[in-house]
Amino acid sequence: MTTDPPLSPAPQPLEIRPVARFRSPVEGKFGLPRQAGIAENLRGEIVLEQEWNSPEALRGLEGFDYLWLIWGFSLNRESRPGQLTVRPPRLGGNVRVGVFASRSPFRPNPLGLSSVKISSIDPRKGVITVLGADLADGTPIYDIKPYIEYADSHPGVRSGFTDGSSWRRLEVIVPEEVAVRLDALFSPQDREALKEILAEDPRPRYQNDPQRVYGLKFGKREILFRAEGDTLIIINID
Amino acid sequence: MTTDPPLSPAPQPLEIRPVARFRSPVEGKFGLPRQAGIAENLRGEIVLEQEWNSPEALRGLEGFDYLWLIWGFSLNRESRPGQLTVRPPRLGGNVRVGVFASRSPFRPNPLGLSSVKISSIDPRKGVITVLGADLADGTPIYDIKPYIEYADSHPGVRSGFTDGSSWRRLEVIVPEEVAVRLDALFSPQDREALKEILAEDPRPRYQNDPQRVYGLKFGKREILFRAEGDTLIIINID
Repeated sequence: MTTDPPLSPAPQPLEIRPVARFRSPVEGKFGLPRQAGIAENLRGEIVLEQEWNSPEALRGLEGFDYLWLIWGFSLNRESRPGQLTVRPPRLGGNVRVGVFASRSPFRPNPLGLSSVKISSIDPRKGVITVLGADLADGTPIYDIKPYIEYADSHPGVRSGFTDGSSWRRLEVIVPEEVAVRLDALFSPQDREALKEILAEDPRPRYQNDPQRVYGLKFGKREILFRAEGDTLIIINID
Repeated sequence: MTTDPPLSPAPQPLEIRPVARFRSPVEGKFGLPRQAGIAENLRGEIVLEQEWNSPEALRGLEGFDYLWLIWGFSLNRESRPGQLTVRPPRLGGNVRVGVFASRSPFRPNPLGLSSVKISSIDPRKGVITVLGADLADGTPIYDIKPYIEYADSHPGVRSGFTDGSSWRRLEVIVPEEVAVRLDALFSPQDREALKEILAEDPRPRYQNDPQRVYGLKFGKREILFRAEGDTLIIINID
C-alpha cells in the first residue's frame, strides 16, 4: 500500500448537530473528572434533543450496561488550532505528548469520547441517567452508541503514560458542621460523587498553596475547600 | 435535576475536519467487517493529513497497544435523516432497534467509532499501521485517541442484542488453482485477512442464492465467490 500516490484532494469538512445535551451537577471545567469512570457515583442525564426524543430511538438500549458518548469540548472555545502536543495533567502538566497520544480537550476537532454506565432509561421523557461521566452540565452530545464488549473491551492492554502514573488520591475531610449542610443539600449518591471528585484533587497541577481557598460549583452550590499535602478539607458551602 | 426547565435554545452545529484518511485493501462497503476486531489480520494505514503530519503529533503513542478512531461513514451519502430505528445485520436484518442502541452507519451524525490494534508507527511519514479496522479505503478520520484501559475497557458487561447472536462463520474453500493465484498476489497476512472477511459472510442478510456469484474488491482485485449453506467457495480472482 505504501507505493500508492499521496491521497488527494483533502477531504471535505463535516457538519454535525447535537442529538442530546448533558445535565450534570458539575457546571464548569473545574471539578470535572479527568476521565470517564473516575467519579463512579457521579450521576448525570443525557437529555435527547426534540428531533430525536422518541422511545423508538432508544429501543433495545435496556440490554446494554454501558454506552459511548461522542461529545463536544464546548468549554474550550479558546481551542488552540494546529497545536501538535499537549501536557497531560496525569504527567504533572509539564511533559509534552502528541495530541493523538492524549485525550486532552485541546485537539484538532473538539470531540470527547466517554464510556458511561447506564443507570436508568426513561424512553418516554427521552432521558438516560448515567454514572461516571466526565461531561460538564450543558455539554452537547453528537452521538450515543451502545458499548459492545467484543469490539470495545481490551483488558490488560498497554495504555502508555497512563499506566505508570496513578493519581495520588487525597483524603477528604468534612468537618461536622459542613457534613450537616451536605446531608441537607445533597442525596447520598451526590455526596459520594462530590467526595470522589475532591479526592481526585481538582486543583491545577502547578498550584500548591495550602492557604488558597478554591470554589467548586456542584449542584448549583459552591463548595469551598483548601488542600495541603495528602489532605483536602471542605471549609464551607455557599 | 429533573425539575429544571427544558434545555434551550438548541445547541449549534459543529464543523469538523479530517485529520487523517484510512488506507485499506477493502475498497467499498461490501466485504467491510461489520465491527472492529472481527478481521484481526486486516491491515490498514492511518495516513495523517498534511496539517497534522508531524512526528510531534504522535509522540508517546508507541506506549499504547490500541487506539480509537472517530471516523466518517463516507460511503453512506444516502444517509436517512430523522430515522429513529435501524435493522442490524446481526439480528438477521428484519428486527428494528433504536438508532442509539445500535452501531449502524445510518444515524443522526454519520460518525463511526472503532478501536484498532496498533501494529507499527512511522512518525516520519505520519503513518500508523493498524489491525482489525472496519474502515473502508479512503475513509476520513476526524480524531485519533489512545485507548486507555482504565476508562475504556469493561470486560463482562451486557451488550444487548449482540450478546446472544453470534455470527455463523462460514468455511472458506480455496481450490488449488485459486490458492496459487492468492499466494502470488497477496502477502500471507492479507490472505488471512481475506479469509476472515469471507468467513464472516459478506452477503446481504436476505440473500441466499447458491448460484449467485459475488465480487468483493480486495487489494485492487476482485474476489469472485459463491456461498451455500455453511460453505463459501472462492471461484476466481480478477
